[in-house]
Amino acid sequence: MSNVSIIGIGQTDVREHWETSLRHLAWYAIEAALDDAHISTIDAIYAGNMLAGQLSNQNHLGALIADFAGFRGAEAMTVEAADASGGAALRQAVLAVQSGLVQTALVVGVEKITDETGSPIPAALATALDADYEAIHGQTLSGAGALLMRRYMHEYGVALEDFAGFSVNAHANAAANPRAMYRNRLKPEAFANAPMVADPVSLFDEAPAGDGAVAVIVTGSERAADMVAQPVRIAASALATDAVALHDRRDLLWLRAAELSARAAMERAGVTPDDIDVFELHDSFTVLAALSLEACGFAARGMGWQLARDGQIKRDGRIPISTFGGLKARGNPIGATGIYQIVELALQLRGQAGDCQVPGVKIGMAQNLGGTGATAVTHILVN
Amino acid sequence: MSNVSIIGIGQTDVREHWETSLRHLAWYAIEAALDDAHISTIDAIYAGNMLAGQLSNQNHLGALIADFAGFRGAEAMTVEAADASGGAALRQAVLAVQSGLVQTALVVGVEKITDETGSPIPAALATALDADYEAIHGQTLSGAGALLMRRYMHEYGVALEDFAGFSVNAHANAAANPRAMYRNRLKPEAFANAPMVADPVSLFDEAPAGDGAVAVIVTGSERAADMVAQPVRIAASALATDAVALHDRRDLLWLRAAELSARAAMERAGVTPDDIDVFELHDSFTVLAALSLEACGFAARGMGWQLARDGQIKRDGRIPISTFGGLKARGNPIGATGIYQIVELALQLRGQAGDCQVPGVKIGMAQNLGGTGATAVTHILVN
Repeated sequence: MSNVSIIGIGQTDVREHWETSLRHLAWYAIEAALDDAHISTIDAIYAGNMLAGQLSNQNHLGALIADFAGFRGAEAMTVEAADASGGAALRQAVLAVQSGLVQTALVVGVEKITDETGSPIPAALATALDADYEAIHGQTLSGAGALLMRRYMHEYGVALEDFAGFSVNAHANAAANPRAMYRNRLKPEAFANAPMVADPVSLFDEAPAGDGAVAVIVTGSERAADMVAQPVRIAASALATDAVALHDRRDLLWLRAAELSARAAMERAGVTPDDIDVFELHDSFTVLAALSLEACGFAARGMGWQLARDGQIKRDGRIPISTFGGLKARGNPIGATGIYQIVELALQLRGQAGDCQVPGVKIGMAQNLGGTGATAVTHILVN
Repeated sequence: MSNVSIIGIGQTDVREHWETSLRHLAWYAIEAALDDAHISTIDAIYAGNMLAGQLSNQNHLGALIADFAGFRGAEAMTVEAADASGGAALRQAVLAVQSGLVQTALVVGVEKITDETGSPIPAALATALDADYEAIHGQTLSGAGALLMRRYMHEYGVALEDFAGFSVNAHANAAANPRAMYRNRLKPEAFANAPMVADPVSLFDEAPAGDGAVAVIVTGSERAADMVAQPVRIAASALATDAVALHDRRDLLWLRAAELSARAAMERAGVTPDDIDVFELHDSFTVLAALSLEACGFAARGMGWQLARDGQIKRDGRIPISTFGGLKARGNPIGATGIYQIVELALQLRGQAGDCQVPGVKIGMAQNLGGTGATAVTHILVN
């Protein structure tokens, strides 16, 4: 078990923040996290971001955010692993605090999709794929998700409408989350009849990219216990990778990185899938939600979709997922998403999840994926 | 003192690698470092890169490089801090190994400038500046360097030709480095008469961007001593930041981040500037070389340029810098540069620097800057 705990969390709404700059967004989340932790200084900042270089012509976010948040001089850098950047940034903060060389670390995820001045958004998102062998042929992230979903449907004899449960659950949960991007409820019929983005990935299947910022403050667990009433311990943290291009994977329908990182994290935390009370997974596509459930041991191969069909992913089901709406309905602020998952898990563990609360949460797991699963970061949080 | 040592180093030439892809470049450096360390497995990869997203439409380099180098599954991510990305990636590897959660870490810096398919290079480099307050007005990295240099000349009554010693020294040293981009010698007259890039920054003042890859393998110092004949210990590591935009700095002619990170590193290593035998500094502009020497305590304020004029930065001078040619003549593979500095220092400490060798090096310091100095990463290496 790691010796690192969360002492502060903060987040902005996920939506189109036309009127707010990248640095302001980051600051709003940081301010909330500092208030939550009742502290005013930190030692290092790890920024999770994927697209600022492409969309806002802004690299060098570490120094920029440190200065704007009032920490000029502090250690600061960006960590990038496509849409798993947020999870990877937290992983680095855990290692930094565990090393004893950094006492208090701030992890901030920020992504600004609207008001972009650089590349078109689909081109920017496609940098999560293999540029030389996928994107150069015109492949997009939505297109890659479609290939995965089509194969899943073909191999397991599943129809498009069989995935509806994932999006219906996400929207139902988002309805109770005031931070969510889409709080409307979704009917299974609407899912089945939605316009196509990249057949069979439809409008209600792929998570919408949104603007947002989120922050988590971590420090050593002993110190944390003296500082706040309800520290949340990061029992384990693990990051694993796989081939970036789909055609390079040994098994298209098995998220190897998700399996490796989940297994490593569960071993370190000394838990099994049965012990996990809430699982915040990376539902950027419904098929990725199904594949994550399988790779992490919550469903047998080819059976992940059945958990959605049978309602086992709801708040009162066997393994609640996307309890604040997930990427699908809370919204997907790409490089910040992995840290939203952590804040949501922390709220569940603190019993502060409001109408999104799952009763009696003791152990939560979050898994953040990059691209079509080439990076997977798993964190296990406990009370 | 940290408990982390370097057990393997590898590098490619810095030049225009038209025929070599980003992943191949990275692999050549990694292969050399693995051979040097006599190992075939590593646990985590930290990639230092700034521009692949902009220039090659490729983010997600961690997973991409891990897979291509034969480490599919391994923990891997990108660390970005503009042109200080390389130094920041090594800093993260040091924290990871020091934490005890990662045994052996591979740090790989890679940058591919030629054959770019994305943004124009000056626009991509300008993402190191403040996008909202500098770059949006048309400011470029060269232009920002010019503002700094002009102010330095004005405040201290220094002429353009007074900076010549930096570039002349860099080219003289590069002549002895078979990996260097520009091995031609440079005459002071040629420096003074060079065409302008952004007045007063001239062609022979600003370091040329080049393609290159470089790798360093680190592990715990006790383990390192059992593994290789000449481990190089990372005595200390520190990263600090400053305002990104020049107009936001309290003192335009003082590199506050350079001072903070150098002071922290020297304190942790228990050394003073007098103890440093070689200083690999970030001479992306000659004025940054002068300012780094001042901020790190090797020269009084406004006097850094005199070390170059008086030949004190040569191999037999008081504080040898840019011993393999520096950014100016070895070439500047942007996000990889900070790791080239480390490999060069390691060669000096191992007595394997060939014709670039400074006699009797026991303690070396490297400092990698981002943009106009908003990020500074300092590493102190000892035998």
